[in-house]
Amino acid sequence: MTTLLNTINSPADLRSMTRSQLKPLADELRQYVLDSVSKTGGHLSSNLGTVELTIALHYVFNTPEDRLVWDVGHQTYPHKILTGRRDQMHSLRQLNGISGFPRRAESEYDTFGTAHSSTSISAALGMALAARIKGEDRHAVAIIGDGSMTAGMAFEAMNNAGVHEDINLLVVLNDNDMSISPPVGALNRYLARLMSGKFYAAARNVGKSVLPSPVLELARRFEEHAKGMIVPATMFEEFGFNYIGPIDGHDLDSLIPTLQNIKNLKGPQFLHVVTKKGQGYKLAEADPVLYHGPGKFNPAEGIKPAAAPAKQSYTQVFGNWLCDMAAVDQKLVGITPAMREGSGMVEFEKQFPKRYYDVGIAEQHSVTFAAGLACEGLKPVVAIYSTFLQRAYDQLIHDVALQNLDVTFALDRAGLVGADGATHAGNYDLAYLRCIPNMVVMAASDENECRQMLSTAYQYPGPAAVRYPRGAGTGVPTGKDLDTIPLGKGEVKRQGKRIAILAFGSLVHPALQAAEQLDATLANMRFIKPLDVELLKSLAASHDELVTVEEGCTMGGAGSAVAEAMAEAGIHKPLFILGLPDRFVDHGDPALLLAQCGLDAAGIEKSIRARFL
Amino acid sequence: MTTLLNTINSPADLRSMTRSQLKPLADELRQYVLDSVSKTGGHLSSNLGTVELTIALHYVFNTPEDRLVWDVGHQTYPHKILTGRRDQMHSLRQLNGISGFPRRAESEYDTFGTAHSSTSISAALGMALAARIKGEDRHAVAIIGDGSMTAGMAFEAMNNAGVHEDINLLVVLNDNDMSISPPVGALNRYLARLMSGKFYAAARNVGKSVLPSPVLELARRFEEHAKGMIVPATMFEEFGFNYIGPIDGHDLDSLIPTLQNIKNLKGPQFLHVVTKKGQGYKLAEADPVLYHGPGKFNPAEGIKPAAAPAKQSYTQVFGNWLCDMAAVDQKLVGITPAMREGSGMVEFEKQFPKRYYDVGIAEQHSVTFAAGLACEGLKPVVAIYSTFLQRAYDQLIHDVALQNLDVTFALDRAGLVGADGATHAGNYDLAYLRCIPNMVVMAASDENECRQMLSTAYQYPGPAAVRYPRGAGTGVPTGKDLDTIPLGKGEVKRQGKRIAILAFGSLVHPALQAAEQLDATLANMRFIKPLDVELLKSLAASHDELVTVEEGCTMGGAGSAVAEAMAEAGIHKPLFILGLPDRFVDHGDPALLLAQCGLDAAGIEKSIRARFL
Repeated sequence: MTTLLNTINSPADLRSMTRSQLKPLADELRQYVLDSVSKTGGHLSSNLGTVELTIALHYVFNTPEDRLVWDVGHQTYPHKILTGRRDQMHSLRQLNGISGFPRRAESEYDTFGTAHSSTSISAALGMALAARIKGEDRHAVAIIGDGSMTAGMAFEAMNNAGVHEDINLLVVLNDNDMSISPPVGALNRYLARLMSGKFYAAARNVGKSVLPSPVLELARRFEEHAKGMIVPATMFEEFGFNYIGPIDGHDLDSLIPTLQNIKNLKGPQFLHVVTKKGQGYKLAEADPVLYHGPGKFNPAEGIKPAAAPAKQSYTQVFGNWLCDMAAVDQKLVGITPAMREGSGMVEFEKQFPKRYYDVGIAEQHSVTFAAGLACEGLKPVVAIYSTFLQRAYDQLIHDVALQNLDVTFALDRAGLVGADGATHAGNYDLAYLRCIPNMVVMAASDENECRQMLSTAYQYPGPAAVRYPRGAGTGVPTGKDLDTIPLGKGEVKRQGKRIAILAFGSLVHPALQAAEQLDATLANMRFIKPLDVELLKSLAASHDELVTVEEGCTMGGAGSAVAEAMAEAGIHKPLFILGLPDRFVDHGDPALLLAQCGLDAAGIEKSIRARFL
Repeated sequence: MTTLLNTINSPADLRSMTRSQLKPLADELRQYVLDSVSKTGGHLSSNLGTVELTIALHYVFNTPEDRLVWDVGHQTYPHKILTGRRDQMHSLRQLNGISGFPRRAESEYDTFGTAHSSTSISAALGMALAARIKGEDRHAVAIIGDGSMTAGMAFEAMNNAGVHEDINLLVVLNDNDMSISPPVGALNRYLARLMSGKFYAAARNVGKSVLPSPVLELARRFEEHAKGMIVPATMFEEFGFNYIGPIDGHDLDSLIPTLQNIKNLKGPQFLHVVTKKGQGYKLAEADPVLYHGPGKFNPAEGIKPAAAPAKQSYTQVFGNWLCDMAAVDQKLVGITPAMREGSGMVEFEKQFPKRYYDVGIAEQHSVTFAAGLACEGLKPVVAIYSTFLQRAYDQLIHDVALQNLDVTFALDRAGLVGADGATHAGNYDLAYLRCIPNMVVMAASDENECRQMLSTAYQYPGPAAVRYPRGAGTGVPTGKDLDTIPLGKGEVKRQGKRIAILAFGSLVHPALQAAEQLDATLANMRFIKPLDVELLKSLAASHDELVTVEEGCTMGGAGSAVAEAMAEAGIHKPLFILGLPDRFVDHGDPALLLAQCGLDAAGIEKSIRARFL
């Protein structure tokens, strides 16, 4: 079936094809993406949308000498398939398999590792200027979605790139009108205006001719003026880029000649390409959110409504709590930086649309916006993945913690995240949060405690964070009440002998299993900050050895906090700090990864035996 | 002399004045600013530039019910003087005196604490939406400079604000064409175009009439079209704001009627005001960079060239090293986010203009841009204040450290920074950097070691940071060589008895003095990561008690690293961790503040005696 695709082992093979072969190749490639993602799970809609664009870029540009930087990078499956990794797609996002994102270690065609959004223009600008400094004649191309364009760092890069008049930099805006959640914000409205009306209709079929001729360029300017107040010189031209588009990103007869022309232009170029997420697979076209990142499914039947899972996810626990608390407190405002589904806020938006704010992919803004709300006596809850809070670290310090404002942070995906890998790991939050004055930091050990901690953070009149892991917990039912727990107090869950295990968050449960095997004491510490020093002292007094266990980096994390407190209290007993190692942990099944790190029940038991018994 | 100003104890007094009194009041206020800053030191140019704007805002808006949020906030001296703090200006930026920035704890007119740039629109949007949620009829006004507009979070906020059609939000762009360094980037070019030509000349005197009439609005549109390709609908309108301006920000007869009209408009408003830094003081107008943040001076004579200080600053040590290393290595590229002077890069730019990149106030971009350069084999050095690296934390993790790219970070202003206070404190870098895999983290104890560490970081083939404090060191001369020090190795500087002090960076010198008083051993640990565990073990074996000393937060910092290493090595001896306390430390003389924290030589000695002797 895939007779053309089978012959392509590198982009050089692609470039030896005739133009007429590319359309059938695109059909094969699209089918290959659909088949392989339906078998492995992964990102689908976005990859169906970039099939033709990927072919056109590798066909026109001399990769890997020319550099392609894919923003976010979850849309790079066609790129991976065309760059020698077709036969590895079955291992996608699995332990020791290929990554779901571009990765420098994986291929010379992956020029820059991405996963968090909006880094591509900065990186490509660096590459373009490096080529100029080194006197090398190569192109750097950033391919960025309209969602990613809303993050501030994309604008920082545009602002900086626009002043360099002699660089070989192309920014391709892949405009599919959707980040993971439907897009929000003025920029998306603006892009929609650019696409609307006859301008787009006229421009989409003139890809080749619109460009190099000054006469045609002038004509385009006049056309813009004829349209009057709707589409004047674009914002991207104000930033110093030469704006071209919008063109149909599924039409190879527009894409290829346009890119060929652009290749001959000097200075920052901006190509606006319109694609459709899910293109070519009707079910995904109809519901790109459902097909954004599916598990395995039968392409002929589509995704079937899953049976209700036996356990609720922590995300659901948060979503339910948010609705329940909002129902009793009019001051609650919920904020998400473009992660409505991922953060469990769909129901909250339905019930409380006036207190729901999706601010777009704009983590920095989300936190300072929350600070502004808190100044007026409202009680904002910022739902954000642990890894993405890194984007708003200064805002958390400078705007929230320093002013001791009442903002609740619900940190989803804390610890190892599985298939998304090192880029998305929520391993550092305990370390980077506890060093900040005024912060309260909690880690949930089960679903019900997560709910209690959220209430506790919410009622605490300053900045407080609750971290919880990706996926489901242990199956503990959550009630409907909004009880809090005492600030800075842990609890002993098992009384044993000799060894006391001080466990934090998601590892309380496996640590308890280990404690049973070892007849050790197990404390659920609950709070990383303020640490329960009284409990620590009491455990130290009644045991010979102490062990800390956390799903976070050992450097500066919760165990480190215990070590500090022991030093302060003059406790000179053996302490064993267990947690995530000081290296970036690759993608794979989370349970497998935890076991590899020695953080499942058996691993914890084994490590303690080796150290103390 | 200040007969009008003396009568103003709150903006209500101002609002009771007649319009004709405002111009003489502005003259008095400008003189008061000049007099008081020349006595205390502080920010001058920016405050001379905001005199009329401040008067107009408080005159038109009903402060504090209406909220003014001053971006960065170093331009708020006129605001402070008009809001009841005239008689406290003599204590500006001094211990227990008023802050150089807005501060919620200081005045109800300081609605949001600022200092780091570009937070104002986010905060004001939060306040505007809070008013809507609470059903309160008040305005929120963000006043932001053109430099601050280049930071991404300002765009994130604009993008989010533009979709709210019924809020009372005004963004005042205070366009003075200068951040601390002269501005760079496409946005500034764009603003210059907006100001150029007859449009500005025509608009500046029509402040009152241009606004409410649809006919005039239409005329304005036509005028824009008549200008053709130069000034079409502005970028700010594309973001959903109603753009008004540019108007003369020193002309009260333009400012006041324009603001009065805007007050009656619903939805996001954007007023472009043009001011001159240093306005009204010829010397500052001529050289606003020199008068940006002067020390004390005689206003009649101006700032005199200072005698060369006896000691070079760490900033100079860095600047000299950068030039010397660049001279021998063509691959070196120097990057600053808008801090050419502050980071000591003036000479580097002169000598190596093609390898110097000021990317604007764009910390996020600066780090990922460096990552892109490093991918191509260049060796970027990012010069950034410790406190501002917080803005690029995710980029450091996700784009640099995860890919183990060869980027050198020169962290100026680490530890307490003195007059700028808690917002600018570089207290957290050791904690937030050492938890990241692949990082090398050093702290310089004197000038020559700083130079050696910079060379060491530069030659290390992965990400490495060197932190050094604000101001001068101990006066140690620096050579011209580019020697490195062994990776992860500290050194014993004094052999003593019983107590071993493990000191880091800027506190090695006072800790050595304390060690001499105590006859203790003193080790200069040099590396926070990798920690010199061998040295630690050896010191632990030969001493009874260990002490760590650092100018950084004790939570998760260098002492915490020592505590972890002791636990790992099974060392069960008393450990005393000295460092900055877990609270935000206010502004004041740095030596005084350090002493208050017990981190001068006497304080270190005293604490150790109290704990161990």
